[in-house]
Amino acid sequence: MTLENLSTVRSHGGTQGVYKHASTTTGTEMTFAVFVPDHEEGACLPVLWYLSGLTCTHANVMEKGEYRAACAQHGIVFIAPDTSPRGDGVPDDPDGAWDFGLGAGFYVDATEAPWAKHYRMRSYIEDELPSLVLRNFPSADLTRQAITGHSMGGHGALTIGLRNPDRFRSVSAFSPIVAPTQCPWGEKAFGNYLGDDREEWQAYDACALLDQGLRVPDLLVDQGDADNFLAEQLKTELLVAACERAGQKAEIRMQPGYDHSYYFISTFMAEHVAWHAERLKA
Amino acid sequence: MTLENLSTVRSHGGTQGVYKHASTTTGTEMTFAVFVPDHEEGACLPVLWYLSGLTCTHANVMEKGEYRAACAQHGIVFIAPDTSPRGDGVPDDPDGAWDFGLGAGFYVDATEAPWAKHYRMRSYIEDELPSLVLRNFPSADLTRQAITGHSMGGHGALTIGLRNPDRFRSVSAFSPIVAPTQCPWGEKAFGNYLGDDREEWQAYDACALLDQGLRVPDLLVDQGDADNFLAEQLKTELLVAACERAGQKAEIRMQPGYDHSYYFISTFMAEHVAWHAERLKA
Repeated sequence: MTLENLSTVRSHGGTQGVYKHASTTTGTEMTFAVFVPDHEEGACLPVLWYLSGLTCTHANVMEKGEYRAACAQHGIVFIAPDTSPRGDGVPDDPDGAWDFGLGAGFYVDATEAPWAKHYRMRSYIEDELPSLVLRNFPSADLTRQAITGHSMGGHGALTIGLRNPDRFRSVSAFSPIVAPTQCPWGEKAFGNYLGDDREEWQAYDACALLDQGLRVPDLLVDQGDADNFLAEQLKTELLVAACERAGQKAEIRMQPGYDHSYYFISTFMAEHVAWHAERLKA
Repeated sequence: MTLENLSTVRSHGGTQGVYKHASTTTGTEMTFAVFVPDHEEGACLPVLWYLSGLTCTHANVMEKGEYRAACAQHGIVFIAPDTSPRGDGVPDDPDGAWDFGLGAGFYVDATEAPWAKHYRMRSYIEDELPSLVLRNFPSADLTRQAITGHSMGGHGALTIGLRNPDRFRSVSAFSPIVAPTQCPWGEKAFGNYLGDDREEWQAYDACALLDQGLRVPDLLVDQGDADNFLAEQLKTELLVAACERAGQKAEIRMQPGYDHSYYFISTFMAEHVAWHAERLKA
């Protein structure tokens, strides 16, 4: 697993890099971004993963997320993967829609043709990319990990966090899709990637996983109440109810006037980084 | 002068807006961005202007500049204009180069055909846009203004600041072109916009204006020492020498390892906002 350094740039007292590698999981080249704050030689820094939303690559949060100042302040490595496999031979939505296919991997391992060959973002995020980070970023302390994400990536953070409670000390999300089995985005994606048997979908639905008894150590969610996707797709109220039923420790905040964009994410990013840092360093 | 509201979004405890108007100065439609922090009704907030660099519009700093948290903290209105006239009938570089024409107005009033008709960014920034802001943004206190900018926009901030010392209480710049009459970017732009008589260029050269006796109340400059444009185009050392000759109060800082990008600008943006705020509220 060799890693190609596409770019590194100095920013906020650290190094923002972009890297490419041939993924054995997706069968494609994959690109991801890593910010490493300056640190003493030999020091190991806790890691915060950020999973992006529909249509995004690693670049959106890297350019607009405003995480570097907070990560440098708290000494946190920030890793932002891509949202799907890409490249020759990777199938896309037949109608070219932006909510499925390229940029819309939904952090599942697809089981249905033609998606199953490349669309394996669950295994990529859960297994291959951490191994790659472990070998190539000696300053990243993978015994101390946290995860966050936005929208489809908030769904990814919640479900990957719930399925891996020993790996992630804290989980947060910005405007997550909390119950993809109960919204149009999720129904379209899961129907195509996973097939018609809705039982197979449950492993990728945060509310269903909570009902099954899975928990995360601690949870923080921010959601704008002026978010156009709130009522039909995001359905934050279902997560509130599921956490209550489950006794899941959670702070789920409605933020008045905020929408679904990076103008919202960047507003609360520093708070999320600080919240994770507190738990990663406890 | 009616103002069209293209978008407003809530961010960092304030409102980020984008506006369009028909400019009588440039004879085109012009677009600009304004961030207004939340404030008590009737309150007036000091104003920081940000002039962007080559190829940019209002959007680059709005998306990547990381100014909103600091402006909200200090109660500063942040205004980001475009860098040139645009639209049907506006001439561009005949070779399509990115360093002249569209996106490269150099904050001059062109005197040469075919540029003189539309390329009047000096008058637009010095006269028309402040008048428009005064009429349309009652919370912007134009008795307390500061100005900053990046690269070509740093040149704009320095020269507009020097020519208007009573209007701007403080001037700063990120990797500015400090002596456009002595670098390829400036020689190309001024030769085309202003003609062959280099005497006419002097009003748009920060170092020349300092030698002519113009001063600003206070000056802060950050420059990355890994900036690819430093040696040939930016020539920070000429500004250091000109400030010393002039006795101009100035802090000009070389930042080790930083380049010319928004990864650099965003790193030092909060410091610049705080520095201006201190002077605007003194």
